[in-house]
Amino acid sequence: MKKVALIGVGQSKFGNFPEKSIKDLFRDAYAEAVDGVEKGIELRDIKETFIGSLGSGGGQLGLVAASLISDVGLAGIPTVRIEGACASSGFALRCAVQAVTSGTCDIALAGGIEKMNETSREQGRYWLGISGETEWERLAGTTFPGVYALMANRHMHEYGTTEEQLALVAVKNHRNGSKNPKAHLQFETTLEKVLKSPVIAAPLKLFDCCPTTDGASVAIVCDADKAKKYTDTPVYVIGFGAGSDHLALFERDSYTTVRAAVIAATQAYKMAHLDPKDIDFAEVHDCFTIAELMAYEDLGFCKKGEAGKVMEEGITEKDGEKPVNVSGGLKSKGHPIGATGVAQIYDIFKQLRGEAEKPSRQLHHVEIGLAHNVGGSGGVATVHILSI
Amino acid sequence: MKKVALIGVGQSKFGNFPEKSIKDLFRDAYAEAVDGVEKGIELRDIKETFIGSLGSGGGQLGLVAASLISDVGLAGIPTVRIEGACASSGFALRCAVQAVTSGTCDIALAGGIEKMNETSREQGRYWLGISGETEWERLAGTTFPGVYALMANRHMHEYGTTEEQLALVAVKNHRNGSKNPKAHLQFETTLEKVLKSPVIAAPLKLFDCCPTTDGASVAIVCDADKAKKYTDTPVYVIGFGAGSDHLALFERDSYTTVRAAVIAATQAYKMAHLDPKDIDFAEVHDCFTIAELMAYEDLGFCKKGEAGKVMEEGITEKDGEKPVNVSGGLKSKGHPIGATGVAQIYDIFKQLRGEAEKPSRQLHHVEIGLAHNVGGSGGVATVHILSI
Repeated sequence: MKKVALIGVGQSKFGNFPEKSIKDLFRDAYAEAVDGVEKGIELRDIKETFIGSLGSGGGQLGLVAASLISDVGLAGIPTVRIEGACASSGFALRCAVQAVTSGTCDIALAGGIEKMNETSREQGRYWLGISGETEWERLAGTTFPGVYALMANRHMHEYGTTEEQLALVAVKNHRNGSKNPKAHLQFETTLEKVLKSPVIAAPLKLFDCCPTTDGASVAIVCDADKAKKYTDTPVYVIGFGAGSDHLALFERDSYTTVRAAVIAATQAYKMAHLDPKDIDFAEVHDCFTIAELMAYEDLGFCKKGEAGKVMEEGITEKDGEKPVNVSGGLKSKGHPIGATGVAQIYDIFKQLRGEAEKPSRQLHHVEIGLAHNVGGSGGVATVHILSI
Repeated sequence: MKKVALIGVGQSKFGNFPEKSIKDLFRDAYAEAVDGVEKGIELRDIKETFIGSLGSGGGQLGLVAASLISDVGLAGIPTVRIEGACASSGFALRCAVQAVTSGTCDIALAGGIEKMNETSREQGRYWLGISGETEWERLAGTTFPGVYALMANRHMHEYGTTEEQLALVAVKNHRNGSKNPKAHLQFETTLEKVLKSPVIAAPLKLFDCCPTTDGASVAIVCDADKAKKYTDTPVYVIGFGAGSDHLALFERDSYTTVRAAVIAATQAYKMAHLDPKDIDFAEVHDCFTIAELMAYEDLGFCKKGEAGKVMEEGITEKDGEKPVNVSGGLKSKGHPIGATGVAQIYDIFKQLRGEAEKPSRQLHHVEIGLAHNVGGSGGVATVHILSI
């Protein structure tokens, strides 16, 4: 298979931006990605685009991809919206990688966009609910915090995971996010504050949940053989995988494993000829704190049931053995649904090139990073492994 | 580039099915596609799926792809929804072709789904409106018949195209669709009836517009080198292309050309090493009668401005020199948004293999067919060229 590399990435500031349109946000991410290609890239070099979005906002749902790319001067080239719920831009990246490896083009753009805050609370709940199972979960009143609460309760029951261990995920990710100038919630929190925050769906409290965020992200995918024409330091996609599962929890083999992510990771490791221990750092899909703990296990960073202990031991802290969510993760950086997958890629790209904005954010001696992006409550997932 | 072939196709009956869910419709199309692979295909042979849908219906919008494939037993494999408005499954096919040519997998499934009728009239209008330009068209009150009426008026003004020539498209496509057991509107009409039908947006009348349809479609894409393992008569994808344009008409170079389709066709012809004259027959995107006439010109079947004459001369009739929309087209077969692109492929596959259900539908001595699928009012388009 043809090898591919990333030659530029961009991310808008994440947050609540009532004054910005989806075009404004996308333009910010696009401009950073294009301007960041050191040796320059011409508009005409970009031959195809894939834009991840669930509901996009701004009233432009159908053809949102064409709307966004025509605004930045790319009208003419193939473009399509990719929807895999919260993994929409993980899949957009996958499609862009496939487009380049297929030989259809040398350079494709993957992006993601979501405006969550402009929707009413009712629309927001609808948006999120529609990515869960409809007949047996959503119509019965289950929301996403409820579904992840079921997973958390089962994990606590089976493995003795504690509410404190869950809370430590939030404390870590807020500590990291407080140093990320693009994060939505740029503040630290404490174990006590997390544990005393209002219960949303027991055992999950407000601080176990990611915020409602607006944002956009872009990554430029290039045939690896041609990447040096654009940059001296391309970041290679050395493994990628994706999987799916039944939407309803009761149809799945387990409440405590996201099978879609296990399948995705297995494929990605195999393609990269790597084991979990070879991964230097990762961005994982912590829509709820329990999701990050399950990710450790699904990705093989630890044995089943031991994620809580990994968290307690500080292994995934920024200065730990295997840093996870140094960006702040969905929890602190924010989770603009369609933008999240490529935003994870943004941070891994920056870390691998030693370009994390503030010196205190930069990891040292990292060569291999992994991105883990989950759609819905685990209905789909993508994993990408990047290397300098 | 690796070559790809289609080894099976399926289409649900098109129509108004309040009693059927999107899963029911998809299951029908999927079963026909899989059962039609003569030498058999195992579930585990299908490695990835791409499902085209704009709004899908049935309450399952996010992760509709995972929902549909888990219902037919495919849970586990990568799956994603592809949205390019009315060209959603044209793009789903494109992504499946890219997945196979990339070497990610040997077999990928492209499908499409839409339930239009269960939405309220208001929702329906919203759905369609959101695929046009938002700020300057939709919010100003323009609907799709209005946008296509602008194109029709301009075409009449510039080239002398007449309302009778538009009406002849409807008469032809209804004649063809009346013989298609899967068509939504299985009845013939007359020039007089079309011309006397109620005006929707002058000069377009009711019979110039396609109906509101529920349906699903599936095509199984295979590495051409491995296709003979599954069937003795694979249908090869010998060319494919896609393009985009500004969403708003006023931003485009011309009201009478769908530039996205011209770009798509140019790429597809180039890849197939063919000229428009080499195409034996085509399925084109006749959401409105004017769209079919513009397609003749955009695809190079005739010179700019001569499509009305082509129609009058019967060149695109079933027994003409270059039959177009023998299936009945969107006009009579129906237009379940997300399902349309792959449904066009369904008919071309059947014709190329001599399997059009009723003898009177079958074309003779055809070897090369073209599918032309347009999203929105021309914001995006795909073209695929198939050959036996």
